[in-house]
Amino acid sequence: MSRIGPGPPQDADTSRLETFADGVMAIAITLLILEVKTLPDVPGSRLAAAVAHQWPSYAGYVVSFLTIGIIWVNHHHMFRLIERTNHAFLMLNVVFLMTIAALPWPTGLVADHLRDSGRTVAAVAYGVTMECIAIMFNVVWRYAAKDKRLLDPRVDAAALDRASRNYLVGPVVYAVATLVALVNAWASLAIFAALAVYWLLPGTGPRSSLLVPPEEGAKGELSTG
Amino acid sequence: MSRIGPGPPQDADTSRLETFADGVMAIAITLLILEVKTLPDVPGSRLAAAVAHQWPSYAGYVVSFLTIGIIWVNHHHMFRLIERTNHAFLMLNVVFLMTIAALPWPTGLVADHLRDSGRTVAAVAYGVTMECIAIMFNVVWRYAAKDKRLLDPRVDAAALDRASRNYLVGPVVYAVATLVALVNAWASLAIFAALAVYWLLPGTGPRSSLLVPPEEGAKGELSTG
Amino acid sequence: MSRIGPGPPQDADTSRLETFADGVMAIAITLLILEVKTLPDVPGSRLAAAVAHQWPSYAGYVVSFLTIGIIWVNHHHMFRLIERTNHAFLMLNVVFLMTIAALPWPTGLVADHLRDSGRTVAAVAYGVTMECIAIMFNVVWRYAAKDKRLLDPRVDAAALDRASRNYLVGPVVYAVATLVALVNAWASLAIFAALAVYWLLPGTGPRSSLLVPPEEGAKGELSTG
Amino acid sequence: MSRIGPGPPQDADTSRLETFADGVMAIAITLLILEVKTLPDVPGSRLAAAVAHQWPSYAGYVVSFLTIGIIWVNHHHMFRLIERTNHAFLMLNVVFLMTIAALPWPTGLVADHLRDSGRTVAAVAYGVTMECIAIMFNVVWRYAAKDKRLLDPRVDAAALDRASRNYLVGPVVYAVATLVALVNAWASLAIFAALAVYWLLPGTGPRSSLLVPPEEGAKGELSTG
Repeated sequence: MSRIGPGPPQDADTSRLETFADGVMAIAITLLILEVKTLPDVPGSRLAAAVAHQWPSYAGYVVSFLTIGIIWVNHHHMFRLIERTNHAFLMLNVVFLMTIAALPWPTGLVADHLRDSGRTVAAVAYGVTMECIAIMFNVVWRYAAKDKRLLDPRVDAAALDRASRNYLVGPVVYAVATLVALVNAWASLAIFAALAVYWLLPGTGPRSSLLVPPEEGAKGELSTG
Repeated sequence: MSRIGPGPPQDADTSRLETFADGVMAIAITLLILEVKTLPDVPGSRLAAAVAHQWPSYAGYVVSFLTIGIIWVNHHHMFRLIERTNHAFLMLNVVFLMTIAALPWPTGLVADHLRDSGRTVAAVAYGVTMECIAIMFNVVWRYAAKDKRLLDPRVDAAALDRASRNYLVGPVVYAVATLVALVNAWASLAIFAALAVYWLLPGTGPRSSLLVPPEEGAKGELSTG
Repeated sequence: MSRIGPGPPQDADTSRLETFADGVMAIAITLLILEVKTLPDVPGSRLAAAVAHQWPSYAGYVVSFLTIGIIWVNHHHMFRLIERTNHAFLMLNVVFLMTIAALPWPTGLVADHLRDSGRTVAAVAYGVTMECIAIMFNVVWRYAAKDKRLLDPRVDAAALDRASRNYLVGPVVYAVATLVALVNAWASLAIFAALAVYWLLPGTGPRSSLLVPPEEGAKGELSTG
Repeated sequence: MSRIGPGPPQDADTSRLETFADGVMAIAITLLILEVKTLPDVPGSRLAAAVAHQWPSYAGYVVSFLTIGIIWVNHHHMFRLIERTNHAFLMLNVVFLMTIAALPWPTGLVADHLRDSGRTVAAVAYGVTMECIAIMFNVVWRYAAKDKRLLDPRVDAAALDRASRNYLVGPVVYAVATLVALVNAWASLAIFAALAVYWLLPGTGPRSSLLVPPEEGAKGELSTG
């Protein structure tokens, strides 16, 4: 932790950053349940209907939970390639975490307004937050990929380029889903839900391509000494 | 953390997963207290009665806290046998954590409606959440047990089978308790409370059998080199 | 993390327990701020008075924060002597954490009722929670001290006895403070506040005596090889 | 974790303190989103206006998030020079964390009252909290810098003095910003926002000077063996 290596002192190993990022993501993901109301004032005879009626809250909980979970897995993958940090990289990660920690708010907004005419505003707020997360994820990755001193020296250039290209899928599809919200909020939210489920599946999306397909991984971009 | 071993790059050590899972479980368990109201608007002269009246909140706090605590201990035991992760295993753990992080919601529902006619709905919601947790715990375990590359190579097959059989106790008894709620919510909740206390005791339940009885443990399923 | 030593498999190193305990204590301590109201409905012209009026909330925040902080430091000290865990020890720690995580509730109760006739009930609830924390701290310690396999082998018996005696100060003084609440709630809460400040000072109270006075520490109870 | 070195037993490595501090900072930073309301009772047709109207909440979220993030980065830098802890140092860190964990409260106060006449009170409360954070950061640092046994022995005196001088910038500028609030709350809050953005930039402020300018770092104050 307090190790001071022979390198420039502003560089440090990534363990404390990973711990902090994991902490923020773990808290943001767990706070999502606070957006689901416990209905203390509903009379017992109407509780079943009231519990059923707030299904948008459960759907929002599941979609946002899976989304943050997928981001955490991606962050986990990304940091297997990153060996050191510096001041600017830490700050970019703080801004990235700021976008993730904000997600409980638009999730609650969508859950509360999915059935009234506010759903377009809520869906746009949700989409803009997701877009910010996706953009900051790319900014963090590109900063590390550009500054070779932060990376594991065994990562090769072709793999970096492939990962950088693949990570761009996130901002593009989220931007499309957000624009769709202006026309049809339901369609937009369905896209976000479908993406969360799709990226959950094995072998899909940008996050599995960070380290190229498993079958060629060990020899692909890492010259494992 | 950012170590890249000679194995396939999609596999990684489990420390960051354990940290994230511990974080989510620690937060979910601590958020339970937010379901216990602080009664700011009760006049002082009636505070004693109001504090006594909300005993279902305290009972819910204790039962859910112990349950998440027991799950954490089991997760801890399970990961002593698991050495590596892959993408699908991380995702299964995210879904598992999603079920645990949801527990504060049905806990609050039960506490708020234990004394009105909504108690059946609340008890069923509690039971379904518990059943989801138990099922996902088994899914996570069976995925790891099936893919030998994730396990400590010293764990033998007989021990795995025994653990897999014993872990099934959870989903079965929680399913029974949930079905009982349809007939009698009090009986159902009493079963959940009794299970939490029972599994707290030394030498009981599925979680202690993961690594066979202590007396035969060291030689039992581990060929300790 | 997933290391399996030659010892009995139900014993394990303490790092994951310490991480989980630190997580719960960090969350409980930080949730305390949620008991301080942000007064959204107070008109601007009366905000100064309203902010001043809720001084019991600030006092409660400070006293409970320092108390959990002191418990964390003590837990930290205790675990420097504990090398391994077993199932029962993990479960005792879960129960111990359950008492700490409950502290935001009586803190809010005291803050809300310090100026009405509910203050006796609130002070007793606060005292009972503190007493439970102190008792469970002793239970956790005594379990570890009794089972020599959990301890660092270099800790000697005289030091253990001295620590065990000193830790008893907590339950005794908290029991006295709780009983005082039945006569005078203000006096009781003043004792809890004074203890939090007193134990904050260097060289005071039971927590510094765990490892005997510094001047004789290195040679005292540890035969440092 | 439970390592007991040959030194005095009241000294210990800093990893558990760093974990706890990271936990508290990660939770405080993530709880900030709870101060942003989800507007459940606003009719859908007025949601856009209501979402726009609560811009002070978003501004408060961003400024406080960046501020805690910058403090975390600074804490991270500071602990690269600190190798050991003792009881008093742990307690000072607890008090430091108490000031950080309080920040969600004045943030909510400012967000709720930025547009009514309560803004002066809110801005002063915000400034006083920030000043307490900055002062405690300096107290923690100066305690470690004074007691050479806590520091990495390779840190030289000139670097310590430079860091101590530079860290004083925080309390001074925050004190000025707090005093400005008495005259003009908007100007005060603008200063806090500007400082958060300014310190986010690479190569600015006290936190980057802890380890002297990068170009001379490796040979500057560390005699890297």
